Amino acid sequence: MAWLTTTYLIDSEPETIAARAEALAIEQSVECPLEAVRDQRIRDEVVARVASITPAGSGRYRVDVEIAVQTVAGETAQLINMIFGNCSLWENVQFVDVALPPDLLARFPGPRHGIAGIRALLGAPHRPLTSAAMKPQGMSVAQLAAMCRTFALGGIDVIKDDHGIADQAYSPFEARVRACQAAVNDAVRATGKPAFYAPHLIGTPRVLRERARFARDEGVRFVLVAPMVVGLPAFRDLVDEFPDFVYLAHPSFGGAARIAPPLLFGKLFRLLGADAPIFVNYGGRFAYAQDDCGALAAAARAPWGDLAPSLPVPAGGMRLDRVDELLGFYGPDTMLLIGGNLLLAEGDALLARAQEFVAKVAGAGAAV
Amino acid sequence: MAWLTTTYLIDSEPETIAARAEALAIEQSVECPLEAVRDQRIRDEVVARVASITPAGSGRYRVDVEIAVQTVAGETAQLINMIFGNCSLWENVQFVDVALPPDLLARFPGPRHGIAGIRALLGAPHRPLTSAAMKPQGMSVAQLAAMCRTFALGGIDVIKDDHGIADQAYSPFEARVRACQAAVNDAVRATGKPAFYAPHLIGTPRVLRERARFARDEGVRFVLVAPMVVGLPAFRDLVDEFPDFVYLAHPSFGGAARIAPPLLFGKLFRLLGADAPIFVNYGGRFAYAQDDCGALAAAARAPWGDLAPSLPVPAGGMRLDRVDELLGFYGPDTMLLIGGNLLLAEGDALLARAQEFVAKVAGAGAAV
Repeated sequence: MAWLTTTYLIDSEPETIAARAEALAIEQSVECPLEAVRDQRIRDEVVARVASITPAGSGRYRVDVEIAVQTVAGETAQLINMIFGNCSLWENVQFVDVALPPDLLARFPGPRHGIAGIRALLGAPHRPLTSAAMKPQGMSVAQLAAMCRTFALGGIDVIKDDHGIADQAYSPFEARVRACQAAVNDAVRATGKPAFYAPHLIGTPRVLRERARFARDEGVRFVLVAPMVVGLPAFRDLVDEFPDFVYLAHPSFGGAARIAPPLLFGKLFRLLGADAPIFVNYGGRFAYAQDDCGALAAAARAPWGDLAPSLPVPAGGMRLDRVDELLGFYGPDTMLLIGGNLLLAEGDALLARAQEFVAKVAGAGAAV
Repeated sequence: MAWLTTTYLIDSEPETIAARAEALAIEQSVECPLEAVRDQRIRDEVVARVASITPAGSGRYRVDVEIAVQTVAGETAQLINMIFGNCSLWENVQFVDVALPPDLLARFPGPRHGIAGIRALLGAPHRPLTSAAMKPQGMSVAQLAAMCRTFALGGIDVIKDDHGIADQAYSPFEARVRACQAAVNDAVRATGKPAFYAPHLIGTPRVLRERARFARDEGVRFVLVAPMVVGLPAFRDLVDEFPDFVYLAHPSFGGAARIAPPLLFGKLFRLLGADAPIFVNYGGRFAYAQDDCGALAAAARAPWGDLAPSLPVPAGGMRLDRVDELLGFYGPDTMLLIGGNLLLAEGDALLARAQEFVAKVAGAGAAV
């Protein structure tokens, strides 16, 4: 029998933690009273089991549970269901880690490009990378394309749609992708330096597929997708069907309190094929702890079976004046994404500000 | 300009709540400093705005935000992104309600069958309805089919797969659906009373579609789907593509702390087409408050544009001895789902226990 191991933090009184851990193991496997499990084979081979309970601070325990691999049947959606399905409904349970045995892990190809693939496309084998977001939504296609061109001329590596940009009347998907892709191509011809436009793919699975086809036909190589918005299984399908795209994964709808951010964004997104997980940086608009951000970046890059390392992309209230500090913390295998802070300038000043960002990253990269 | 209204509970000090509410409105629309929004049209028509801030208990505020309908572009995935995308990443924000203006609501057909359709299929215009789950997973196809037959002979209305049952080697999807559908048909011929088998559809969108086709071809009319596991947009696609199914929606992976259960299970699942949302009942294995359960059932049935009412299905540690109490609380437009507690009996005793459940519900139904 093969087992995968899930880890949860459970808030509990000391005298009830053993029973609560056992209840969780049953909930995540047979989901019925053990008395109703009469077949010894099922008791031995299907019922999940508590592997360890360790104190993890006041009133909190770290619980490892072993779940039978055969219950997952090698499938993405069923993996989610078995590792954090019903127990997600318990208020005082946080899902913090998962370890998959090699045969199950091999069912998940993970990032098709990862850090090495992104560096190859950008012709940047060592330095830290840069990204900017086009916003605010509401701008016309022509305005977005002009901003895209400016960022590419400024030397930014990856220029992405704001994740709020979808297929609105003010910047319809097809017209936008065509114009922004042309704009970035123009800039690349002018500068001789690679740069990529990453449109936001969002929609139900049928819409996602149509938009992915359109983008591919327009020569797009990078895309932005929010796996929790489109659904983790739909994200997996998309990566399998369009493996040539580099996937920037956006954290929207990630409601991370119940799944630890290093696990959701660092490991699970990567497992399903994210090449570069975007996450909210410490000290910005979101209250993520620096330790969590460090753990997330480490998880994204750590050796894990045959999975390619994915490229951490800290974002969310980033500022130019923090470039040195952030690259000192995250190291060079990082893409810094600065959104709104770049946009405090406009016109020629925006170009200069983009160039300043690129120069700061290059300078910091030489130092780290 | 048309606006939708979202409501959040935000934990905050009194002196910072105004700024936090404003920051949330910006986060859920243009997501950049207001200084970077230079176009007055975008400021007027795209930037979300705080409509009201009301105290909601100690250190907590209820905040209504108006979001421009045009940012949603009428799409399911983008709706999720705009109403609880990035702000899901803020720890002290809970998403508790959404109100859609008529034109936007009309883009969502909602349940295709709802309470009336389910009652018509079952030939049960007034009484409360019953459901049982086949478990534990690990049983063979023959064992599952036998249990399905027993429940149908016992008079249960809807017999569903346990939500942990997917396409495992011990009960592969196609063989299971064929056998259980045949078993329920046999029982219906014997009793003359309608009963339905609801297989669990789970998978990436491509797999979901294949399984839905197979089930439809086998004559299946009810299915079980966990919308948060497969992804809300994928659920919407499935309902649109297979409108003849009655959809039981399972709460797995619903991690409900950050989205209020009445909103997620009562409203959003219904909006996307769930005919009958299954939810965890108060006083069972989950710590849901009775008030939340009542609000959830009320939301599932409440008048809402042209959406059909959906049928509340309380579940999760239900017991036969609570039938009277629960029907007194929820009323007759309810389907009671008892899983493990029925399975404390086996063989002939299981048939008797199913009959007892059915009789109790009929008796309680006559009283309510």
